[in-house]
Parts: sequence; structure tokens; C-alpha cells
Amino acid sequence: MTPFSSNLEACIDTLGERELIRNIASWLGESGQSSPSGIGDDTAVIPPSTRAQLITVDSLVYGRHFDDDTAPEAAGAKLLKRNLSDLAAMGGRPGSAVIACFLPPNLSLAWLESFYRGLAKCALTFNTRVVGGDISSSNNDLAFSLTLLGQVQNPPLTRKSTHINDTLWVSGSLGGSLLGKHLNFTPRIGEGGWLAGRSGVSACMDISDGLATDIDHLLASGQEALLEPNSIPVSSAAHELSKTSGKDALCHAMVDGEDFELLFTLTEDVDPVAFSSAWKDAFDTPLSCIGRIQLSSTSNSHIRWADGSPWDKTWHGYEHLGNT
Amino acid sequence: MTPFSSNLEACIDTLGERELIRNIASWLGESGQSSPSGIGDDTAVIPPSTRAQLITVDSLVYGRHFDDDTAPEAAGAKLLKRNLSDLAAMGGRPGSAVIACFLPPNLSLAWLESFYRGLAKCALTFNTRVVGGDISSSNNDLAFSLTLLGQVQNPPLTRKSTHINDTLWVSGSLGGSLLGKHLNFTPRIGEGGWLAGRSGVSACMDISDGLATDIDHLLASGQEALLEPNSIPVSSAAHELSKTSGKDALCHAMVDGEDFELLFTLTEDVDPVAFSSAWKDAFDTPLSCIGRIQLSSTSNSHIRWADGSPWDKTWHGYEHLGNT
Repeated sequence: MTPFSSNLEACIDTLGERELIRNIASWLGESGQSSPSGIGDDTAVIPPSTRAQLITVDSLVYGRHFDDDTAPEAAGAKLLKRNLSDLAAMGGRPGSAVIACFLPPNLSLAWLESFYRGLAKCALTFNTRVVGGDISSSNNDLAFSLTLLGQVQNPPLTRKSTHINDTLWVSGSLGGSLLGKHLNFTPRIGEGGWLAGRSGVSACMDISDGLATDIDHLLASGQEALLEPNSIPVSSAAHELSKTSGKDALCHAMVDGEDFELLFTLTEDVDPVAFSSAWKDAFDTPLSCIGRIQLSSTSNSHIRWADGSPWDKTWHGYEHLGNT
Repeated sequence: MTPFSSNLEACIDTLGERELIRNIASWLGESGQSSPSGIGDDTAVIPPSTRAQLITVDSLVYGRHFDDDTAPEAAGAKLLKRNLSDLAAMGGRPGSAVIACFLPPNLSLAWLESFYRGLAKCALTFNTRVVGGDISSSNNDLAFSLTLLGQVQNPPLTRKSTHINDTLWVSGSLGGSLLGKHLNFTPRIGEGGWLAGRSGVSACMDISDGLATDIDHLLASGQEALLEPNSIPVSSAAHELSKTSGKDALCHAMVDGEDFELLFTLTEDVDPVAFSSAWKDAFDTPLSCIGRIQLSSTSNSHIRWADGSPWDKTWHGYEHLGNT
């Protein structure tokens, strides 16, 4: 569904700012909150927190993260889920959110309603509340940014805190997200919170730029990942895509973006079998041990296959503009 | 200075995402923070808070809130100051910020550096730290949104909590901000915090859409503002503008946007003379009592002049798309 309309009466410009905000509050329903704890004052008021808090911001741009083929409900949910995936990677639980919208004058009001209803449904599912926002007229682009707060019960999971001989793990399966998963993924909030509560989890992140690119962000300096190719969980979408792309399904699993799975490490004293079994008791989400961390033997690649060959640099992950 | 360059080598597209983030962290300097409390992980970690917190988001769009004539440093500072003004209106003190950028490929790297350096300087002045962000490629527009957290020492100042016979006050002077104040204003953080600590301050907001428009957002239902025209602090810029605009300077003070002054009410038991004197002891910022609140006598206007005539609706404030 295209977000734009040439029928002026169907566009957001027919409403004034206050009327548009009233509409948004109604579309958000229970997932929105009114002042003082939400929409309607200069700022929202949120309660004190006795625990450390998390904050993250992620964006959605028409033509980059969604297009005319994307259901507006799915686009709205994706905006929130991108942030939820970041929170999951730190072991956090979601809290309040605020959203900034950049809306061109020819944006269809019906599209915006469906976008917000998709966001609202996702917010209720993950116990998030939209407490405020900002609406700006854009000249051309349709874009959104959402800032999400969260809390951690345990010390947050971080990157770069890996050790030599830590084992490497990923949730779910990887590759080919363009065929649908980039929209219909499930942020691993439950899994991330569970990991943060276990001993021996040394580092964690979410895979958004592709395993090959992201693994470098997880490793501390002087380390490389030793990967077992047969252990990498290649998705059926990656296999599907490889039929027409001319690339290996494994290549798709290594370099495709927007998997939104967790990549984490366990210290070598953790028994992998007992750990896998505990995970399986808690979650239906597949889990794979894909390798381990070793001293870096070369500065040319941060990934080495189990047979000793370095990761082929020509398979590099697509470097898109993402999180800072 | 135009933000765009036709020289490809001077544009942000010459850098990859990671290199751009490294540059931004360097431009932010002391006003930025690195992981785990800042930039570099999936989310930033912020400390617990024993007090109620505030959250607000505001945006900046090229061609709407700044243009080729705007110094990039001033644009960066304005993005933060718009949020600080919202925080001031609640009586809050600034805390952590995250920023989302939507950058077209032909954005000049030098412009972006100056933008961030202006933001960084302002952040240090107001004791704010940029703990995270997101960078997205845009198709066309140059836009930013900033989410700011804050804390309150006292119960936050809200809107709609006004009473009949409360007196109405504004800080500073109003009108003609287009001549410069929309960029070089000072968010009234000190004043807002001071107001939140005094008894008898019944409501507060910042004036961003013009006094005539915003006063309606302050009043509770069934109330109207009785204004004394000679008491409204008309800025010299409003007088300057009136020479060429064909409008009264008072009209500019009533309807021009982006004043970023505080509008607040005092309960009738507060002695206005003693209050003004205490303010003057604390601040150099001018203060004016502009009228009081009375029972609404008509549904046509929420403002009445002291001579009994209603506010002339043809003077309506420009309704731009702003805060929800």
C-alpha cells in the first residue's frame, strides 16, 4: 500500500496539528498514555527507577526500510521491533517510548492510521507505552524515529567483553530476511532477559548488519572468531534466495542484514550441552553454537573457518547506515 | 552556509557508517559518552533515578526550522535548545540525550561537523550528555530528532492545572523571533527549576506557537485569559518587524512562534510584588504579569482584552506542526 495520496482530502494536510494529535492518541489507544505521564504536556513524566535503565533510538525511512509493498501495520511494528531487538541484546525489558514523525503533505491519513495501529498492537504485546512524540512536516521524505527506554534486572549484556575460548552462539536462523523476516521477526526480549540472568554469558548483541559484519563489533581487540560453517543456522529463506541470487545460502546467512537474532558468547566453563538443554526448556527459538573465539592470527580478517582458511573478504556484509 | 555539496569527496557518502560514527564521537568530545553508558553498544545504559523523570522529543528539518542562512553550529544548538525549553517548562533539569539523523548523500561533512560541534557546546553548557544515536540515509530531506531525558527535584509543572483568578506571567519578551531569537534564545532551565520549587505556581508551559495559540493549551476547560495589552512584553524585534509587516508589534508578540519563553500562572494568594522581587533577585530575565484567568464568558475566544473585547480571531497564531 503506497503511503501517499493525490487526493488532497485523504491527506494529513487537511487536518491541523491538534486534530492530527487527537487522532494519533485515539489510534494508539491503550498503548498511548495521556499527560502528565504521557501525551499532552511539554514533556511526559515517567516514574523513578531503582535499577539501571537503557535507552536506544532507531529509525524507519520510506524507500530504505519499507516501501509501497509493505503493509503500514507492519511498518509501524517494525519501527518498534528494531528498538526492542536492541533492548533484547542488552537483556532489557521495554518501558516508555517516544516517536518523532517526519510527514510529507501528501501522506495518506488512512496509511498513517494503519501505521499507528500496527505500532500500538506491537507496543501492547511487548508492554511498551508511547508517552510522547513530535510531528514535523517534511519536504519530501516519510521517516520516523523511535526512542525506547528499558530496564535491566541484572547487569546489562555488553559487547567487547569476550574472552579467548568463549563459545559463540546465535538464536534462530540467518539470511534471506528480505523475503519477509525483516518485517515479521520477533525481538528476542525473553531470550535476552534470560541470558542476562545466567552466569557465564560474557557478551551479546543483535545481528542487524549480517553475522560477518556484526561479529567484529562483538569481539574484543586481538580476537578472531573460529566458525564451523556446518553449524551456522542457514534459514530456508537464505536457501530460497540462493536459487536466484547466484550466491551460496551460507553466504546469505553470513552477510544479509536485518536478521534481528541474538549473537552471544559463553565462557569456556559453561557446559554447552547443559546450556542448550536449559535454553530448550525455556524457549522454542532454535539455538546454535557456531564456533569459538581465539587469538587473532592475522589482521586481515576477524573470522576464520574451522579448516583454517580466513573469511573471504569478498563476502563482506552490506554496510548500511545504522546504529551508533 | 548550505548543508549540501556537489563535490562528492566533501560529502558524508565518502565515509562508511563506522567511520562517520567515529567522527561524530570525536566532534561530540566531552559532551558525548562511550559505552556502556553511551555510544558503541546496542543501547546506552543510564543510572537509576530516585526521582520522577521527564522525557521529550523535538525535531529539526532543513527548510522548516533552519535554512542556508543558518550557521550549522546554531542549527545544532537549536535542536537541543528546543528540547531544553520543553524541559524548563516542566521545571526539569537536563540529563541524557539521544539523536536520530536523516542524512541525504550530498550532505557536506564540514557542515555536519559544525552542526555537531554547536550541539556539543550547547550540551556542555546545559550539562547534557549525548549517550547514543542513529544515522539513517534519507532520500532527500535533512532532518534530526533529539530525545532528552530530565529529572525533577519537585513535582513537575503542568498545563491545565490553572484556577479562576490565577495571575498570568511571561518571562522575557515576545514576538519577531524570526529576526534572530528563534536561533539565539536561552532555554529558561534555571527559571523553570526555580518556579517548580516555589509554592503557588499552578501551571507552566513554554511559548513555541505564539502566546495567543499557546495560552489555550495552558487553560483548564471553562476558563479564559483576561489580558492587559500594555503589560504584554513586546520585543524590540516585534517593533522592528512591524515596520515592514503591516501588523502591530503587539500582534507579532501575540502570534509569532518560537519565542521559547515561559508562560505560567500563580494562585491568587501569591503577592505579585513580592514574587516579582524574588524573581528579580534570582534572574536578569525580564518578568511580566500580563493578566489573570476568569470564567469563560464565550466559547468563541479564550482570550479577552482588559476593556472587555474578545481576542480578534483574525490574529490567530500560525499553526505549525509541533509537539504532541
